[in-house]
Amino acid sequence: MNRQELIDQIRRKKSFLCTGLDTDINKLPSVFDASVDNILPFNQSIVAATKDYSVAYKINTAFYEQYGARGWEIMEESLAAIPDDCFSIADAKRGDIGNTSSMYAKAFFENMNFDAVTVAPYMGEDSLRPFLEFENKWIICLALTSNAGHEDFQKLQVGEEKLYERVLNTVSKYGNINNLMFVVGATRAEQLKHIRSIVPDHFLLVPGVGAQGGSLNEVAEYGSNQDCGLLVNSSRGIIYASNGEDYATRAGKEAAKLQSEMSKYI
Amino acid sequence: MNRQELIDQIRRKKSFLCTGLDTDINKLPSVFDASVDNILPFNQSIVAATKDYSVAYKINTAFYEQYGARGWEIMEESLAAIPDDCFSIADAKRGDIGNTSSMYAKAFFENMNFDAVTVAPYMGEDSLRPFLEFENKWIICLALTSNAGHEDFQKLQVGEEKLYERVLNTVSKYGNINNLMFVVGATRAEQLKHIRSIVPDHFLLVPGVGAQGGSLNEVAEYGSNQDCGLLVNSSRGIIYASNGEDYATRAGKEAAKLQSEMSKYI
Repeated sequence: MNRQELIDQIRRKKSFLCTGLDTDINKLPSVFDASVDNILPFNQSIVAATKDYSVAYKINTAFYEQYGARGWEIMEESLAAIPDDCFSIADAKRGDIGNTSSMYAKAFFENMNFDAVTVAPYMGEDSLRPFLEFENKWIICLALTSNAGHEDFQKLQVGEEKLYERVLNTVSKYGNINNLMFVVGATRAEQLKHIRSIVPDHFLLVPGVGAQGGSLNEVAEYGSNQDCGLLVNSSRGIIYASNGEDYATRAGKEAAKLQSEMSKYI
Repeated sequence: MNRQELIDQIRRKKSFLCTGLDTDINKLPSVFDASVDNILPFNQSIVAATKDYSVAYKINTAFYEQYGARGWEIMEESLAAIPDDCFSIADAKRGDIGNTSSMYAKAFFENMNFDAVTVAPYMGEDSLRPFLEFENKWIICLALTSNAGHEDFQKLQVGEEKLYERVLNTVSKYGNINNLMFVVGATRAEQLKHIRSIVPDHFLLVPGVGAQGGSLNEVAEYGSNQDCGLLVNSSRGIIYASNGEDYATRAGKEAAKLQSEMSKYI
């Protein structure tokens, strides 16, 4: 999916919601046994209930890899359940030497047809460049993450700037606003304003709204740009909204609620 | 596998060789068609031919993920072909928020029975800690990589030290010498001496000897410690030593040659 198609979808749905299919068999609604085979039907119901309100879906590979080859198969089948007009993200946080990153790119962009994959910047330019050679595909590079450990390295002072600022400045030159986004776990006004001063035009993938407590309003107000420029993720808050038979309806309602708040900013 | 068992194996085989099963169907010997189904028999032959000279095997997940669920299955089967007394490494370069890293740990330590997994440090302590909770399992954290892109971030000056030095100093405190190694793509005497001054006791996984041109002698001389403390990887130089019917014999000979050089330092 190219940038214009993504923006068009955001305007049409008046939403910049990304629903995270972080499906854990131990948290499935009570109508399901805690079986790997129930991940796909659960995901299918969630997607059907939320697709009018979500412009993107994010599949975190760890949740699937833990079940081995069968898990990988379910990831492929879950991707197939995402409508073609929605933006699909493999949250895989990959990155390796160039030759090897080419294979990760093939895994997520060719063997599966994800629109985007999240990547880690530590190994530098040649570890990310192979992903950028695919047309209408995207990398979403970790910059400032939302976990406590982001203090350990991302906030280190590197000359005049912090490491995550250097990552934003440097990695933004590897690609362009048509093939590169950043993961920014920032939910406070000051942080967002600052990040927007470094990367005014890129899309930002913002985790941590909802279950992780971030404020959607501050993100929308201070993180958006003229093209919206945001994908805000919610996983648990939507997919586990109810543990009962009404889980899909309730997931749809949670997604609709977020979409309704988002619509004010489109 | 615990540290003592690894050291015992190194002394018994007089080797610190890690053979990388970076199997690419387009580079299989001419006796094989370029088919995914030939990866496993090829890997099995390579392991059988090299196991007396290799103390470790490294499977780079990218090479398998590119073939989807079938590739993952072949990775599982290839792991099963590695003898139990050899140290097995999933070269996966994973790392995510704590909850999610637990699932990666399950994928590689429980669902599969790898001894170690490579991880990226960018997300900090809570992204690595879940892996360290498994007994007799290891993480091998990227510190200084061998690709050109290591200049982009790893060599940045952070206060009195470079980022990769900060990673060595900080991450070494997350675990201990019994569950933590570092990836160090250093093959020059000065670099190795310097790294040993920061982490004198940890095992180092050194890629880039052989096809990538590093000097085994300098690595052994300046990188080893009282317990050897090294796993030196060679992939292409061993597994693609011959394109003919003699590919396994030749792979064995290349491994034996490296083992013979290594034996001088044990």
